[in-house]
Amino acid sequence: MALKTVLIIYAHHSPSSFNAAAKDVAMQTLTAQGFKVIVSDLYAMNFRSSATAADIKSKLKNPEHFLYAEETFTAYKEDRLSDDIKEEHLKVAQADLIIFQFPLYWFSYPAIVKGWMERVLTRGFAYTLQNTYDNGLCKDKKAVLSFTTGAPETKFQPDGINGDVNVLLWPLQNGVLHFCGFQVLAPQIFWGPAHASPSERKAMLEAWQARLNGLLEEQPLSFASSKLFDLSVQAGARLRPEVKETYASQPYGLTTGQHLGKPLPPNNQTKSPPNDKH
Amino acid sequence: MALKTVLIIYAHHSPSSFNAAAKDVAMQTLTAQGFKVIVSDLYAMNFRSSATAADIKSKLKNPEHFLYAEETFTAYKEDRLSDDIKEEHLKVAQADLIIFQFPLYWFSYPAIVKGWMERVLTRGFAYTLQNTYDNGLCKDKKAVLSFTTGAPETKFQPDGINGDVNVLLWPLQNGVLHFCGFQVLAPQIFWGPAHASPSERKAMLEAWQARLNGLLEEQPLSFASSKLFDLSVQAGARLRPEVKETYASQPYGLTTGQHLGKPLPPNNQTKSPPNDKH
Repeated sequence: MALKTVLIIYAHHSPSSFNAAAKDVAMQTLTAQGFKVIVSDLYAMNFRSSATAADIKSKLKNPEHFLYAEETFTAYKEDRLSDDIKEEHLKVAQADLIIFQFPLYWFSYPAIVKGWMERVLTRGFAYTLQNTYDNGLCKDKKAVLSFTTGAPETKFQPDGINGDVNVLLWPLQNGVLHFCGFQVLAPQIFWGPAHASPSERKAMLEAWQARLNGLLEEQPLSFASSKLFDLSVQAGARLRPEVKETYASQPYGLTTGQHLGKPLPPNNQTKSPPNDKH
Repeated sequence: MALKTVLIIYAHHSPSSFNAAAKDVAMQTLTAQGFKVIVSDLYAMNFRSSATAADIKSKLKNPEHFLYAEETFTAYKEDRLSDDIKEEHLKVAQADLIIFQFPLYWFSYPAIVKGWMERVLTRGFAYTLQNTYDNGLCKDKKAVLSFTTGAPETKFQPDGINGDVNVLLWPLQNGVLHFCGFQVLAPQIFWGPAHASPSERKAMLEAWQARLNGLLEEQPLSFASSKLFDLSVQAGARLRPEVKETYASQPYGLTTGQHLGKPLPPNNQTKSPPNDKH
């Protein structure tokens, strides 16, 4: 086992919450397996959510026209990022797996988690213009979103009032995690624990505990390999014609986002493909 | 013309940015039309992005188990929300249209805008458990996302490396704006202005200016009416069987999220349906 360190990015205010319990189960289960577990308790840390010039020490490269990604890229290379970002970088650098544990707020992670993404997944550290997706700088790491919903699962079906949960997961999992190269494991979704009975909540946590025992051996979710796209400026990073031809006869698109005008591949962002390694 | 006040929620650090120019064009064009224009310049205001107990004055209802939505719902009813939230509520209450102007960060709005959503779209003010979607408390207001991208449009096509832009817009437009009842106008997308020539940038701003002249008369985007769903707990807020039957013979799903296992309706989150009012 090469995997040794797990980082939990945790975002709930209350130690008596279901999210806290899910975080604690992960800490205990993974520690018992011999992993080093690090927790960033974002609210307790009073983690700054806004990406601003305060993230850069000393002089700005272009104070007249401040651009966050450009300035932090330079500051990263020159070791001038704020201490709180540097601390998170050290944690991420050690981590073989990152678990994001949060309540779904407005169809997404809370702003404090979005702020962590913006501030910590720095250009130069997590990706470069040349190193995205398959070649993202985090390609040797795994990541998993573990979250609670207020609404029941039925509302997040393709015929539910909130729409298919796979659609809302796409920007989070493809646009952030896969973009940086992370191998994204199937999300752990706790459907409506606030409306569940104590025994149902207990069963949810036991299922999570059971999954944690084999989490690191799971096959990741399926995304489109960068090789399938013509990345030249002229082609505009669209699928290669021969790949589109291959998919012309298929019943489904390639992924939730690269759907090619076909039905979405079912559960593309919620279930891993069959594990052909076993 | 009943429409009188426009609120611009603006999120860019730099007054020399393209986002600032787009915000200024909106201010000038709308002011010239006789509208009152209010701007919330979130970074300049140092707007707090994290939803925390600091948003509530005096005693918490349940300090042992702090739940943000519950506590702020009570605090709203008892006029105990923090002053910065109350100021934003006053602006939203006046607004007939809200324009969100921001650079796309990680397939979404910046954390500071996500924080505005979490903190300002308070339960009791923007929605209640009974008042969502068609019946959301903001149903007499319009909203539009106006944003810049780093990547060109080709990357955000259904065969592009970032996937269909309609997919990433779904959680933002349906899950936040439509959820609160807003009539959501087609997004104003500025594709890659940082890589455009000065004359191309000028043309983008002129197109925005031209659109602003008729913006408030535009037909909103098409979402699924709440009436199409069986909202009973037993049915789980899924489409009524007779509605599903109607769609069984259609080539496309209902919306990007309610796709029913069919191809997504093209441009569902980017283009309004034909305006049958004219």
